[in-house]
Amino acid sequence: MDTTEIGLHTGDARGVFDVTDRLAEFVAGRGDGLLSVFVPHATAGIAIIETGAGSDLDLLDRVDAVLPRRDAEYRHRHGAPGHGADHVLPAFVAPSITIPVVDGTMTLGVWQSVVLVDPNESNPSRRIRLTFLAA
Amino acid sequence: MDTTEIGLHTGDARGVFDVTDRLAEFVAGRGDGLLSVFVPHATAGIAIIETGAGSDLDLLDRVDAVLPRRDAEYRHRHGAPGHGADHVLPAFVAPSITIPVVDGTMTLGVWQSVVLVDPNESNPSRRIRLTFLAA
Amino acid sequence: MDTTEIGLHTGDARGVFDVTDRLAEFVAGRGDGLLSVFVPHATAGIAIIETGAGSDLDLLDRVDAVLPRRDAEYRHRHGAPGHGADHVLPAFVAPSITIPVVDGTMTLGVWQSVVLVDPNESNPSRRIRLTFLAA
Repeated sequence: MDTTEIGLHTGDARGVFDVTDRLAEFVAGRGDGLLSVFVPHATAGIAIIETGAGSDLDLLDRVDAVLPRRDAEYRHRHGAPGHGADHVLPAFVAPSITIPVVDGTMTLGVWQSVVLVDPNESNPSRRIRLTFLAA
Repeated sequence: MDTTEIGLHTGDARGVFDVTDRLAEFVAGRGDGLLSVFVPHATAGIAIIETGAGSDLDLLDRVDAVLPRRDAEYRHRHGAPGHGADHVLPAFVAPSITIPVVDGTMTLGVWQSVVLVDPNESNPSRRIRLTFLAA
Repeated sequence: MDTTEIGLHTGDARGVFDVTDRLAEFVAGRGDGLLSVFVPHATAGIAIIETGAGSDLDLLDRVDAVLPRRDAEYRHRHGAPGHGADHVLPAFVAPSITIPVVDGTMTLGVWQSVVLVDPNESNPSRRIRLTFLAA
């Protein structure tokens, strides 16, 4: 199958990381089909938002409001603070999304970018699996 | 590839728009496969809920609770009030969903409808990309 | 098409049910492709989280915080308490997810399990549609 894993250095910061260019590179020349983007981690998700205008940090703020980083409120707590919250994240921001590809280009709207949502500062590197299913 | 964009007039109201019939029409006669529903907009999402019993408006209420329309809480603010909130929406209500199709019919449950979630009153028309990948 | 529905006894409890083994069994021997997991119910969703360390119950807590079970806040209310909340759940925890399969094995990360999120105690049995699209 036409599948690969890419690596991403996220360092020790919590963040929203734009991976659009990496995906565009993967589908270039591949014709028509569906791109599956899948994160094999339990404390990260994939989203499609506008980047560059502040929404990436707004997103982290709202994630923290929905999943407060008060460890006492979670059963799953160990390691870095916020670990319990991070483990609920993928239920709300899923680790899988599918994007149509036409003639080697994702059919993203003008303002759409694909981002890794990674509120967990304990994992300095992440992987993303890209799979292309030809039409 | 078997793909098309449909247009939707959403007017100047915030809303949840049922597009099930449009999708059913697209897959009719297409046999078995997967339907990808993708919204190329940065302030809208796709959901599958029951419509007609109030849940569509309940959904908007809960979106507003999770993403309060108080512009001062967002970095991304310009244009219509609530713009910052609208730009975070797709992280929680993703713009992409995949639905199995068997013999030209989506395998939706009895109470499931596919809706465009569009809290943004500034875009009077929206597009949705439908892609069918045959089995 | 390579598709089937599996049944799940969820009883009268609200819960998060691990279905990873059922999915693994379905894709075993099927080679490379994409697995579509689709829940044909209007009050349940699918998520990928770590199970066994408390995050499943943490998830239900956070769902209840985002979708409070105070019926007076919902238009859609009848039947068991919390029905209105349950009907909004699928907008936030979608009933559809896609997982890559390589050589008959899902490409899940070490800590990822696939769960049915079912906050509705009124449905003692649930169905999940599994569809495999070969690469």
